Amino acid sequence: METSSPRPRAERARQVADVLRQRITAGAFDDGPLPDEHTLGTQLGATRNAVREALGLLRAEGLVERRQGVGTLVVHPKYGHGLDRLVGLAEALDGYGDVVNEVRSVGIVTPPPATAERLGLVPGAPAVHLERLRRLGGVPLSLDTTYLTADIGVPLLDHDLAGRDLFALIEETSGRRLGRADVVVHAVTAGPDTAALLDVAPGTAVFALDRLTHLDDGRPVDAETLHIRADRLTLRATLHRGPA
Amino acid sequence: METSSPRPRAERARQVADVLRQRITAGAFDDGPLPDEHTLGTQLGATRNAVREALGLLRAEGLVERRQGVGTLVVHPKYGHGLDRLVGLAEALDGYGDVVNEVRSVGIVTPPPATAERLGLVPGAPAVHLERLRRLGGVPLSLDTTYLTADIGVPLLDHDLAGRDLFALIEETSGRRLGRADVVVHAVTAGPDTAALLDVAPGTAVFALDRLTHLDDGRPVDAETLHIRADRLTLRATLHRGPA
Repeated sequence: METSSPRPRAERARQVADVLRQRITAGAFDDGPLPDEHTLGTQLGATRNAVREALGLLRAEGLVERRQGVGTLVVHPKYGHGLDRLVGLAEALDGYGDVVNEVRSVGIVTPPPATAERLGLVPGAPAVHLERLRRLGGVPLSLDTTYLTADIGVPLLDHDLAGRDLFALIEETSGRRLGRADVVVHAVTAGPDTAALLDVAPGTAVFALDRLTHLDDGRPVDAETLHIRADRLTLRATLHRGPA
Repeated sequence: METSSPRPRAERARQVADVLRQRITAGAFDDGPLPDEHTLGTQLGATRNAVREALGLLRAEGLVERRQGVGTLVVHPKYGHGLDRLVGLAEALDGYGDVVNEVRSVGIVTPPPATAERLGLVPGAPAVHLERLRRLGGVPLSLDTTYLTADIGVPLLDHDLAGRDLFALIEETSGRRLGRADVVVHAVTAGPDTAALLDVAPGTAVFALDRLTHLDDGRPVDAETLHIRADRLTLRATLHRGPA
């Protein structure tokens, strides 16, 4: 009773790409090239044409590349960043390698009024502005633009902003615990500036993640926008149905 | 002590775009056009040039459009889909309008082996395949490709798949509660087929969301890939720091 589709071939390619993306993300092909198109077709119950088109879609996403004489390779393993608990990037990627932060800009500024309002600051009050380009294995992972309230941010200026997660540093220097963070995730195409910094082609899909982090007493202290390479990082969560 | 940047103007535009995206998402401009460039510049502490470039970036994201004689308008309000609790799209958007599902394909199939494995099915076992294009206010929101185990999926075939969330239907027809879902979120550029179905330009950034949903006894019954219009929906979560 499967109903027919008006554009069966393109659809089939999309569906094969979905299954392959999920297997790539699960690390199925991290150790070598993907099987050839014929073998993939058998494994996926798809025609060779559908597999070929699906691989084209995944190449356009930057997920795989074709290398002469080798076959199709996964460009970067995709790391998962959990959305279950508030952790910094280095904490989330513990065990995968060192996250190194290039501090591109740091200082005391007057934040944009909309940002001041998010942080509960009076107009014109100072804040600490920090921009870091974060790399794992030497390859860019994310660009983090952060505004911190002065009481929390100023004591951080003497610390190792290149080597440490902000969350851990904030808790150490302030002696306070962080509480909740409100996170809004967007998918956007990278503009020229973001693309150049993240070393991807302009027009590549990236995550733009707004995160407002509070101390455990509920006061907002850290307003960030992160641009994250979506070919290198997935966002993961375990959701529960909860009571009816 | 703000350090200087090698490409200050493009950076400034990106940062202004970040603040504007966040205000747009918060619904600040849902009732009419955005203020003019001069006023926005004053509100954001930015030059008119930076505001103009930022609006260009947001137009490229599909978030705003310029209309002759009116100004810059938000194209679609952005709805939030929570990643805190497992709910269907219609449940999440309750109050925003009716989600209507176009059932594009439904039937009993042999799923791809990788999907069968995710669902814990023996190779060759049947599953219910369902593809729905979901609209809110007549405009596409997401394309959902679902495989359900036969025991859960077959009883759904007689029900209102156009008007109902699957999660609620599964619980009603099976008499079982759903438990957890494992979610992996990707940001990808829409290929030609996905773009045509979602009514966006090819190359637009969309979410691709893999979700494996289990009954409350832990058995996986529902393996989905959702392609979600990122200009219409954000993914939201509240994260907690938890114990050290």
